[in-house]
Amino acid sequence: MKKEFNTRVLSGFMELLPEDQFLFDSMKRKIQTVYERFGFVAIDTPVIERSEILHAKAGGETEKQIYRVVKGKDDLSLRFDLTVPLARYVSEYFNELIFPFKRYHIGKVYRGERPQRGRYREFYQCDIDIIGDGRLELVNDAEVLAVINSVFDELKIGDYTVRISNRKLINGLLDLSKEKVEKDLVLQVIDKIEKIGKEKVSEELSIIGLRKDLIKKLIDFVSIKGTNDNVVKRLKSLEAGTNKIFREGVSDLESMLFFLKKFKIPEENYRIDLSIARGLGYYTGTVYETQLDDFPQIGSICSGGRYEDLAELYSDRRLPGVGISIGLTRLFYVLKELNIIDSSEKTATKVIVIPSDDGAVSTSLESVSALRANGINAEIYLEKVNLKKKMKYANRREVQYVVIAQKDSLILKEMKSGEQKEESIENIIKKIS
Amino acid sequence: MKKEFNTRVLSGFMELLPEDQFLFDSMKRKIQTVYERFGFVAIDTPVIERSEILHAKAGGETEKQIYRVVKGKDDLSLRFDLTVPLARYVSEYFNELIFPFKRYHIGKVYRGERPQRGRYREFYQCDIDIIGDGRLELVNDAEVLAVINSVFDELKIGDYTVRISNRKLINGLLDLSKEKVEKDLVLQVIDKIEKIGKEKVSEELSIIGLRKDLIKKLIDFVSIKGTNDNVVKRLKSLEAGTNKIFREGVSDLESMLFFLKKFKIPEENYRIDLSIARGLGYYTGTVYETQLDDFPQIGSICSGGRYEDLAELYSDRRLPGVGISIGLTRLFYVLKELNIIDSSEKTATKVIVIPSDDGAVSTSLESVSALRANGINAEIYLEKVNLKKKMKYANRREVQYVVIAQKDSLILKEMKSGEQKEESIENIIKKIS
Repeated sequence: MKKEFNTRVLSGFMELLPEDQFLFDSMKRKIQTVYERFGFVAIDTPVIERSEILHAKAGGETEKQIYRVVKGKDDLSLRFDLTVPLARYVSEYFNELIFPFKRYHIGKVYRGERPQRGRYREFYQCDIDIIGDGRLELVNDAEVLAVINSVFDELKIGDYTVRISNRKLINGLLDLSKEKVEKDLVLQVIDKIEKIGKEKVSEELSIIGLRKDLIKKLIDFVSIKGTNDNVVKRLKSLEAGTNKIFREGVSDLESMLFFLKKFKIPEENYRIDLSIARGLGYYTGTVYETQLDDFPQIGSICSGGRYEDLAELYSDRRLPGVGISIGLTRLFYVLKELNIIDSSEKTATKVIVIPSDDGAVSTSLESVSALRANGINAEIYLEKVNLKKKMKYANRREVQYVVIAQKDSLILKEMKSGEQKEESIENIIKKIS
Repeated sequence: MKKEFNTRVLSGFMELLPEDQFLFDSMKRKIQTVYERFGFVAIDTPVIERSEILHAKAGGETEKQIYRVVKGKDDLSLRFDLTVPLARYVSEYFNELIFPFKRYHIGKVYRGERPQRGRYREFYQCDIDIIGDGRLELVNDAEVLAVINSVFDELKIGDYTVRISNRKLINGLLDLSKEKVEKDLVLQVIDKIEKIGKEKVSEELSIIGLRKDLIKKLIDFVSIKGTNDNVVKRLKSLEAGTNKIFREGVSDLESMLFFLKKFKIPEENYRIDLSIARGLGYYTGTVYETQLDDFPQIGSICSGGRYEDLAELYSDRRLPGVGISIGLTRLFYVLKELNIIDSSEKTATKVIVIPSDDGAVSTSLESVSALRANGINAEIYLEKVNLKKKMKYANRREVQYVVIAQKDSLILKEMKSGEQKEESIENIIKKIS
């Protein structure tokens, strides 16, 4: 097949056959539909940014993964997430935007990670953020969870739980101890508790210099389990309540629970889990992770949280926000591996019209035009091969219906059952619609 | 507003405010809807390709415009169109694809052109192509025109004409003359006839070495005007009919007209125009250009044609095809300048729910959830400001409806008329749906 060129897709890049592309695009479209259902507006920024903008935000690993772009004397790079472009966008157009600014953005981002199974160098992120001008009510944190809830209902990939916590709790605990600790480092260690267990976490906390009593407090804290209301009750009774930040965290969680009930989100779909911390220094309040109940091993499939200031590097305004991100490319890969993608539909095409012979081409063209005029996605097979080959094509395309056109009549065939019957075009349109 | 960073979008890149982004996305979605209506399937390939793949196809100017990407030791670049990725894709997955392969692809491409008004370095292309394995019936060329027709009906940007010709005609004429001429060069000169007129074209043809009688024949040929049927009649009577290629061109055009009638495409929407040639060496048969009748000065807004072999560089298979491309980013810019974008809708959000005061937050959350559950794109305004400020927000967002929630009742306000009335949530859902 191939001549001298290597036509394989680059290593670490996802490229799908049309059947899988349809499933991928269906997921993308469902996410977009939900984002719009909640009143979020779309933005679309260039894939290329000034390198200085990206480097200002990218820490360690990420910085090394940036793709640089060469053209003339400008120092350019490909974006590695959609948050930095959002920060630049809001800073640049602050005076023209309406706040709170509820935006969604679905687009490709680039990270030159070491290629490994299920890790991609080009991948779609599907983000929403709500950005306030100066302040932003806590109820927005509940609304974001309502969005997550709708997305995963819509995707039909099984039961899931959104796990919520609040960064202020651990921050308060650490403040109270008066030990000098690197908070980010502590959070990163605690984040691993599910993977490596309490003992290992204790060890690691000790290695980074925490005293025994603080470690015990932290472990006791993240071990608090129970119904959502009970967890809040337990938190209220802790002596850490003497710390203002900690108290704020408890009150935030309590308000979240109140609003989530008002949003009528089923209680089995969210749970306070004090062991989630999100590795990023970025978050300052509510944090979310989402797990598939039957597949906890794949980790969080939608995460996010509340932050104090979106664009402190680019803007003098204080822009608090709350948001989430779905890494769609990896999610698709994982769901496909688990074989739990909703594939009840296999293609956007509903019907293929097939002329039984050359004499039926006119009838076919007229029929397919009528179907399309009535909003039905309809293909016509126009190559001159025998009917058997034409039907084979229709079979492979996995459409629901085939219309076999004769000179003066039409036969509608339902592909799954194999049933076929002569029908008028009007009836065919009615049946397929 | 700004700190030390330059947050302006890069020169030559389009970045829109949310209101314009909505209009842009609506156009994109309409184009996609039509492509799917005709049974085309989506593919999505990486923005990054091996440089060798791109350079093999890029000629002169284009090659200079390629953005190179730096990461490790691989020589990578950003794609400059969607045709080269299609050729690579079809070559790579030939055995898994179903032919004729009808694919659409909407994605960003990159060309480092000199920045100038209305020219973009990152732009969306919206392409369809039908690729045959070995052969592809001419009726597909008519189907592609049917797609163009539907797209521009859907976009509602005024009357348009698809101009069609066939490369075989001029190729036949040139073959017949037995002069040694560079066909591509001749086509490029003829392509300019609308801009610079017959005399200048004659001069230029003379400069590139054509003899007077051939120039006269070419000018006479491209000057043939009349109804579509009459043009075909005139072509049939020409002495050039002694040439086989020319005769094929005439017959192709005649068949096109036959099929276009069967597709029921209004005759005022297409016209044989022998002066269009498309500057690209690539095309070998049917060529299309599309112009807005009231704005011919903006040039073709959708072009394409038939080609002999999509992937001769990457594959040993002969893969004839026919396709078109819409440069959406430039088209949007031009339509916006002309102020002829369909902006009957201003946002995807239908309604904003506003709590009249703190006591109405619960009612608001319940209402907005009910609206969303009924498929209505509904936003809720949750910040604690006075009602006047909330209404100002709703006004700026240009939604059609606002629901003002009180503790125990809802008021529906139609923003255009200003009419407002107390309504039950059931009635509100009914009215807005």
